[in-house]
Amino acid sequence: YYDVHVMIFVGFGFLMTFLQRYGFSSVGFNFLIAAFSLQWATLMQGFFHGMHHGKIHVGVTSMINADFCTGSVLISFGAVLGKTSPVQLLVMAIFEVTLFAVNEFILLTILGANDAGGSMTIHTFGAYFGLVVTRVLYRPNLDKSKHRNSSVYHSDLFAMIGTIYLWMFWPSFNSAITNYGDPQHRTAMNTYYSLASCTLATFAFSALVNPEGKLDMVHIQNAALAGGVAVGTAGEMMLTPFGSMIVGFLAGTISVLGYKYLTPVLESKLKIQDTCGIHNLHGMPGVLGAVVGAVTSALASPAVYGNGLQRVFADGEPGEWNAQSRGGFQAISLVVTLGMALIGGLVTGFILKLPIYGAPPDTHCFEDGLYWEVPGEEEGHHELNEVATPNETEKLNS
Amino acid sequence: YYDVHVMIFVGFGFLMTFLQRYGFSSVGFNFLIAAFSLQWATLMQGFFHGMHHGKIHVGVTSMINADFCTGSVLISFGAVLGKTSPVQLLVMAIFEVTLFAVNEFILLTILGANDAGGSMTIHTFGAYFGLVVTRVLYRPNLDKSKHRNSSVYHSDLFAMIGTIYLWMFWPSFNSAITNYGDPQHRTAMNTYYSLASCTLATFAFSALVNPEGKLDMVHIQNAALAGGVAVGTAGEMMLTPFGSMIVGFLAGTISVLGYKYLTPVLESKLKIQDTCGIHNLHGMPGVLGAVVGAVTSALASPAVYGNGLQRVFADGEPGEWNAQSRGGFQAISLVVTLGMALIGGLVTGFILKLPIYGAPPDTHCFEDGLYWEVPGEEEGHHELNEVATPNETEKLNS
Amino acid sequence: YYDVHVMIFVGFGFLMTFLQRYGFSSVGFNFLIAAFSLQWATLMQGFFHGMHHGKIHVGVTSMINADFCTGSVLISFGAVLGKTSPVQLLVMAIFEVTLFAVNEFILLTILGANDAGGSMTIHTFGAYFGLVVTRVLYRPNLDKSKHRNSSVYHSDLFAMIGTIYLWMFWPSFNSAITNYGDPQHRTAMNTYYSLASCTLATFAFSALVNPEGKLDMVHIQNAALAGGVAVGTAGEMMLTPFGSMIVGFLAGTISVLGYKYLTPVLESKLKIQDTCGIHNLHGMPGVLGAVVGAVTSALASPAVYGNGLQRVFADGEPGEWNAQSRGGFQAISLVVTLGMALIGGLVTGFILKLPIYGAPPDTHCFEDGLYWEVPGEEEGHHELNEVATPNETEKLNS
Repeated sequence: YYDVHVMIFVGFGFLMTFLQRYGFSSVGFNFLIAAFSLQWATLMQGFFHGMHHGKIHVGVTSMINADFCTGSVLISFGAVLGKTSPVQLLVMAIFEVTLFAVNEFILLTILGANDAGGSMTIHTFGAYFGLVVTRVLYRPNLDKSKHRNSSVYHSDLFAMIGTIYLWMFWPSFNSAITNYGDPQHRTAMNTYYSLASCTLATFAFSALVNPEGKLDMVHIQNAALAGGVAVGTAGEMMLTPFGSMIVGFLAGTISVLGYKYLTPVLESKLKIQDTCGIHNLHGMPGVLGAVVGAVTSALASPAVYGNGLQRVFADGEPGEWNAQSRGGFQAISLVVTLGMALIGGLVTGFILKLPIYGAPPDTHCFEDGLYWEVPGEEEGHHELNEVATPNETEKLNS
Repeated sequence: YYDVHVMIFVGFGFLMTFLQRYGFSSVGFNFLIAAFSLQWATLMQGFFHGMHHGKIHVGVTSMINADFCTGSVLISFGAVLGKTSPVQLLVMAIFEVTLFAVNEFILLTILGANDAGGSMTIHTFGAYFGLVVTRVLYRPNLDKSKHRNSSVYHSDLFAMIGTIYLWMFWPSFNSAITNYGDPQHRTAMNTYYSLASCTLATFAFSALVNPEGKLDMVHIQNAALAGGVAVGTAGEMMLTPFGSMIVGFLAGTISVLGYKYLTPVLESKLKIQDTCGIHNLHGMPGVLGAVVGAVTSALASPAVYGNGLQRVFADGEPGEWNAQSRGGFQAISLVVTLGMALIGGLVTGFILKLPIYGAPPDTHCFEDGLYWEVPGEEEGHHELNEVATPNETEKLNS
Repeated sequence: YYDVHVMIFVGFGFLMTFLQRYGFSSVGFNFLIAAFSLQWATLMQGFFHGMHHGKIHVGVTSMINADFCTGSVLISFGAVLGKTSPVQLLVMAIFEVTLFAVNEFILLTILGANDAGGSMTIHTFGAYFGLVVTRVLYRPNLDKSKHRNSSVYHSDLFAMIGTIYLWMFWPSFNSAITNYGDPQHRTAMNTYYSLASCTLATFAFSALVNPEGKLDMVHIQNAALAGGVAVGTAGEMMLTPFGSMIVGFLAGTISVLGYKYLTPVLESKLKIQDTCGIHNLHGMPGVLGAVVGAVTSALASPAVYGNGLQRVFADGEPGEWNAQSRGGFQAISLVVTLGMALIGGLVTGFILKLPIYGAPPDTHCFEDGLYWEVPGEEEGHHELNEVATPNETEKLNS
């Protein structure tokens, strides 16, 4: 349980500290949203599938589920990072947690889909929800804050704390709510091999797409994790180490290529300003994971899994097993998730667009100084505090 | 067990790195004191309650207890941070560990008090001990080092590593030595809800007390943890999630208000120079926790706890249970702890005032350069190395 | 299992970030090599001692063993840090992992030696392998990059993250593959006391060897860990807390003295450029640990260990026990390890010397800018980016 908790707080929190002047907000708001979402998710998930005699049963499983739901909100946070006020983030969390619980209920309870590591429920849902929200909140003049939307040397090292924690604990994350025993063990091993292979692919492609053959820290920080996302659905299946490695390799490759070629296009053509590149880390690898899950489900047979099949698919009597229909339900689940994310993100985005939340002006995005007392003003660390130039402050007040 | 260990070393160590020029000392001395106190505490606690046939039994429980005792010393370190030499700190650790073991023996063995998470034994004791020591060591000319008693951007991020680790592992900390099963589970859940609620209260009040509505990193780093302190005594009791949340909310509120309004008064009126504000994070929430513990004990009845009561109160036969007297013993325990801390701190403070420990001069407090080889002198990082100006060095030598 | 994993990734990764301009490479290449070595080690170790019916059995034990092997590669990485390209590191990993598996097979399976914490197989092997490689790759003009071969304030704090993690989890590391129960418990306790005592020795000697009595961060970061290395072989034996403390004290002392007096001599006389000082942290303490292991084995008798002896020495029937021969086998194991490391390092070093791997020129060692897109060039962080001065770039291209 703590492994998942560590990922949510340390991993996601520090992964976002790469922005040179937004470290306080990245860690601080991550902390605020996580603390809030955990409580709200406990209530919402309890309402949908934990209710007993009018009371919500709380325990380790409900806490892990609340952590998962929080992870989804933090993924969406990555898309709007630097461009939203804490009040907007809390409102987003209220809506996203609620929709997450509804979507999870449809997928796991009604459709009976398998999604232990949350490729669909957590990553795909969180990513596309966040992307639609950031599309609705499109800021045409964001390039006024462009000089702050980049990293400095030490901020990249802080972000690597997040990356390494996420990398290490991802096998636990994916296997946290699988059935104890073989399926759990298999999930952890599959995730582990997928991540290792994904990391090598990321290093290779990061150097390949750079004209000078240099590595890009953004790729290492993010794409190296895509392997964990991509085996989230199929983790319990018999992917074999080799199969996991192929999935991880694909995930790392599409993630690096996404950062290099797709993100600039998304921003210029589709007006999606995706600060952390969540489409590359969570969106595409999440869909890949869902597809892998559907295919492996369609190919699963009692001959391969033996008695283990019942343990993987909770409702499956070996006799009445129908792999094709299982694969179909998995595919329907992906469609439902995408639909929920798009519609939910659209509505939430328009609600967040109301001018009542104190959103930062275009000139002050990616800037801690707007919401935090930033230290060092007397010390001459002017690059961190150049906010307070008189004419900019006037603009703010007007 | 490792959860507690992580809190002591990573949590407390990095929580104190917020000072711009005292990061080496914060982490390094924390490490030194912790390594020393662990050994000394094993001996002292073994002497008081682990002796068997003249030998001290060592094992996981004794190591957790030694960690707790070390935590208490590190809390006191927070009050004198930046103003003491490593030799002073070691001497303080010798006395404080000894008194901690005596106080723990009186509370847990003689009075039979409940204090699994150590609101009294660890937090209240450590805080008031440290506050009295820093009062005795009062430096009227400390404002000569005032420009160094503040944070810079990255030092605050390092401190957030500490905060997040403490926050995450606090449920383990509070439940580490409770009875296995229901009481342990209850303690972890109570701590969890208290912390979540405390975090929200901290963000809210941090913005409310600031004239511009900005958040203060000092509050987030510290006050968000007060909820864990405040349920340390009553964690095993049936607080209910809602009750825990109220306790956490109160703890966060008094902690933020303390940082804003009480700490400056303590310094100007009572001459207590509390570097980390331990009175706000450990002192007041610790007393709050003790009071909550006394009240919940006084209200406990077999009707509510059923057979579980015996497991919570080791000596309680259901038949001879007397809640009022339990509450009374808890209240007496708080008074004993405060008395021990005040008298012990007074004596230790005067011993530390002897001019034989190489304490830093008023002009060189909060400065690594006095005890460490600080790198980068040739690199022109003069703001880190301005110590060696000639006339100041003369003062030092004279 | 996760404790070991955390040490490999967080501990070793951040321990090497102390170089002011090599943080990306330290963490990033550590990550790359670790991800690669884990896979390669699983194959190699499986080939030597995990093969069943032509298949390699993977599971938690094989993953821990792969982590150990990876640790050995990362130790060697410490010697060549800043002077090698990622391709060289991968080639080194291929050879070192293979030889590690051979050496481990000889020691544990053929000689039946005890080395649960890997003083010999991991530390001694990794250290002397790396030292020979760096000797072969000797760069006479390395002082052209000397100004970059040092730390800055925050890079030292990042390195302390690594130190504290390694310190905390070392008891788990040493006891990870010991027999469950008493031997495991004993190993953890011995390691714990050795580390605590080593830390105090390190602080004391670091101040003693400095003319002004100041502490050196390099000693604290590294020497404080030597106690864990030195009980790696004998951890399962009945060292007693007092014996462990003596071992730890010795390890800390020789490690600090090594940094102060031996490393400069190694560089000037023997032409061994040891960036991280692995000889002081892993080499000498590893040999010390092997000697302690041989002596305690030679002195072990059924009278002391009772039935526990069988559990410590897997093959030992109490009746046919021969302590002297056990001690002898341990001593032979040390000699074999040293021989394998020296010959293997020599061969690998010459292979790495081939001018086909894009090794950095002498003027650009300890420099991230050669392999990474370093941020902040427009921001005027010139001290991080001074690489691109025209005449140096010319040299690079010529």
